[in-house]
Amino acid sequence: MSMINAFGQADFARLPPEEQVLIERRARVLGPAYRLFYERPVHLVRGEGVWLYGPNGERYLDAYNNVASVGHCHPRVVEAIAAQLAVLNTHTRYLHETVLDYAEALTATFPPELSQVMLTCTGSEANDLAVRIARTVTGGTGIIVTELAYHGVTATVAEFSPSLGRAVPLGAHVRTVPAPDSYRRAPAEAAERFGAEVRAAIADLERHGIRPALLIVDTIFSSDGIFAEPRGFLKPAVDAIREVGGLFVADEVQPGFGRTGDALWGFERHGVVPDMVSMGKPMGNGYPVAGLVCRPALLEEFGRRARYFNTFGGSAVAAAAALAVLGVIRDEALVANAATVGTYLRERLRAVGHPAIGDVRGAGLFIGVELVRDRATKEPAPEIATRLVNGLRDRRILISAAGPHANILKIRPPLVFAVEHADLLVGAIEEVLNAG
Amino acid sequence: MSMINAFGQADFARLPPEEQVLIERRARVLGPAYRLFYERPVHLVRGEGVWLYGPNGERYLDAYNNVASVGHCHPRVVEAIAAQLAVLNTHTRYLHETVLDYAEALTATFPPELSQVMLTCTGSEANDLAVRIARTVTGGTGIIVTELAYHGVTATVAEFSPSLGRAVPLGAHVRTVPAPDSYRRAPAEAAERFGAEVRAAIADLERHGIRPALLIVDTIFSSDGIFAEPRGFLKPAVDAIREVGGLFVADEVQPGFGRTGDALWGFERHGVVPDMVSMGKPMGNGYPVAGLVCRPALLEEFGRRARYFNTFGGSAVAAAAALAVLGVIRDEALVANAATVGTYLRERLRAVGHPAIGDVRGAGLFIGVELVRDRATKEPAPEIATRLVNGLRDRRILISAAGPHANILKIRPPLVFAVEHADLLVGAIEEVLNAG
Repeated sequence: MSMINAFGQADFARLPPEEQVLIERRARVLGPAYRLFYERPVHLVRGEGVWLYGPNGERYLDAYNNVASVGHCHPRVVEAIAAQLAVLNTHTRYLHETVLDYAEALTATFPPELSQVMLTCTGSEANDLAVRIARTVTGGTGIIVTELAYHGVTATVAEFSPSLGRAVPLGAHVRTVPAPDSYRRAPAEAAERFGAEVRAAIADLERHGIRPALLIVDTIFSSDGIFAEPRGFLKPAVDAIREVGGLFVADEVQPGFGRTGDALWGFERHGVVPDMVSMGKPMGNGYPVAGLVCRPALLEEFGRRARYFNTFGGSAVAAAAALAVLGVIRDEALVANAATVGTYLRERLRAVGHPAIGDVRGAGLFIGVELVRDRATKEPAPEIATRLVNGLRDRRILISAAGPHANILKIRPPLVFAVEHADLLVGAIEEVLNAG
Repeated sequence: MSMINAFGQADFARLPPEEQVLIERRARVLGPAYRLFYERPVHLVRGEGVWLYGPNGERYLDAYNNVASVGHCHPRVVEAIAAQLAVLNTHTRYLHETVLDYAEALTATFPPELSQVMLTCTGSEANDLAVRIARTVTGGTGIIVTELAYHGVTATVAEFSPSLGRAVPLGAHVRTVPAPDSYRRAPAEAAERFGAEVRAAIADLERHGIRPALLIVDTIFSSDGIFAEPRGFLKPAVDAIREVGGLFVADEVQPGFGRTGDALWGFERHGVVPDMVSMGKPMGNGYPVAGLVCRPALLEEFGRRARYFNTFGGSAVAAAAALAVLGVIRDEALVANAATVGTYLRERLRAVGHPAIGDVRGAGLFIGVELVRDRATKEPAPEIATRLVNGLRDRRILISAAGPHANILKIRPPLVFAVEHADLLVGAIEEVLNAG
């Protein structure tokens, strides 16, 4: 019976009996592919705004979960879903207005070139569909991603999600390029360098007789380590893939819907207009809805040759959920909040001044804190990251770690995160660092 | 602007202005890969039980939609989802009780060998995961399916879903076998014949140096034309794939959750215990939840080497939705209802006695009516099927057609379908046939 979780062996004996029972039940019916966060897993029964609650009323500050982006159990989203559920929930082969209201509202947030959307249930399905469309339209199969990219879990997408680890082999048609690391490599050269690396990957694909189909990047490089600066560095790489007839796909599953604080979409920092944009996680604040916004010429060609029907994708309830989320983001000015609180939080984190904090970066409320053993050598300190993640958990604050050495704190709270929550988080980080 | 739908060019000019506007909006923002049912698409605004309603209160009898399996907008399911949405909706990396309650309730409906479940959002994702597991565990890649199988829309699953049509090429590692057609081929020989065909496909894979990974069948062969008889015909084929180290996957996305009327799962008609069982559509009565029930040895091996995390899969709300559905199926005795009403409906359809009705078959509330030009030659009559589908739509009854010639009516209503609804359906079928 495996007790392994995402941060190593669970400290089973230290857990309350109630949680031990839950872990045993999980091992029995869900099996070993399911992992829990933390050495001492967290048991949750309730959520509200940025707060999550355990069975005894204990309260956790959520500084990690980007799905409940407008806040856990936001009443407007809950009501929109409940109301539509009670009235109708059918698919897109009948006419229904809400999916059109949503598709129009969503595409209105994009540059005019990106005017059509296909709806799926998960970000994985959206990226998987992007591949199907790119293959059909370009005739190519080659895919370029960053070295620690995560784009999803379908068999096809897992083949170009190197962050899944060695057990999941990359496809023979997949090439990786180094992430645009603004901490370990000169940021001023990021654009030119990233472009050159994509060009080299294209050349290598072609040398193997593989025609490039797409370059896909998470526009804030979430699992590579969170790289947002300098603005505009994506452009030469996008030009490179287009020169050989390939497409550029912006994966906005994590940065999208306002998290980066300057716009709804992360690619807007880069002055490029993608060919396709995938989105998911926060789109329905937990309701499974995702999508792929496209240039119409691509769907014209794809639609001429293939069909695509996703049973639950774009259902009346999915559309109602997503429409409510978009409304909350607008009405509660959450993009501006992400900018303000994100800037404040980065400044406060930088002011901590602990020698283990090598870099504080990101955009809006997507923040990376890189932990190092030595600021001069920048040697990664995964042990400090693990201590922080578990130490914060013990202080009832939820975050996680990312990057090739798992030494980068990944701070990605619901967008309703306020200055007072940022203060709590920074205070706890100081406590754990100073206790070490 | 494409107006093509699943039954040909929409009769656009005949539509009310309101529906014309909706179709124009669809073409503009959803694009041409989206198809509508019917020459005159149906506009829906409300659903209840077996009924769907248009904008002017006009009522459609739903004899087609298997997703709303316990009835459209079933209050118990709506309340369960709404209640959980308001309290908590997080993922499986924290401890939560409902996903375990559901996993235990679900696996309790299976033979003891099938004791673990992995939760996804869609049937496509479940079948996609089955492939990932089978490849990891068997070391093979070969896949055997029936000639017109449908298993889903991810790139990997589309490669073994020949019903998607020629625009979606089958994978080089995919072999197809003829469906076990009980109408055109002697049913008494079905078991032996289907087994021999699977053996031949295995031999062909091996001759090409491809190790077989899995045989996957929809246990009622939904898109091949609905073949349920004779009971037990799957056994030799299952033995054949296992003899070469491959796995047998029962795709219960369409037949599962009681539709076949004799048990919750279609494979139970066949006296076999699959290695993996995928399920989806009716699992949450419209809430996007799906899953893969497995033998634990497979997940032990998969979990040792790979991870799998599905953000929305097994969330607190997904589990609450699925648990409510399972409760309704049990408390309203819907399996027994599927058996009783299904038998009654098949008998009434046979009694129609029109020469175009070549065969009435199926199990429970999954019924195929094969339309032919001549009962002796069994020449398919797709034109009669199209006339019936559209004629029933004009009489406000929703069904569809399937099979290689699209000449087989596919009757697949919510499981709360009653004798009075069966009477309405048969009466309308008689009307359309006699008007022709």
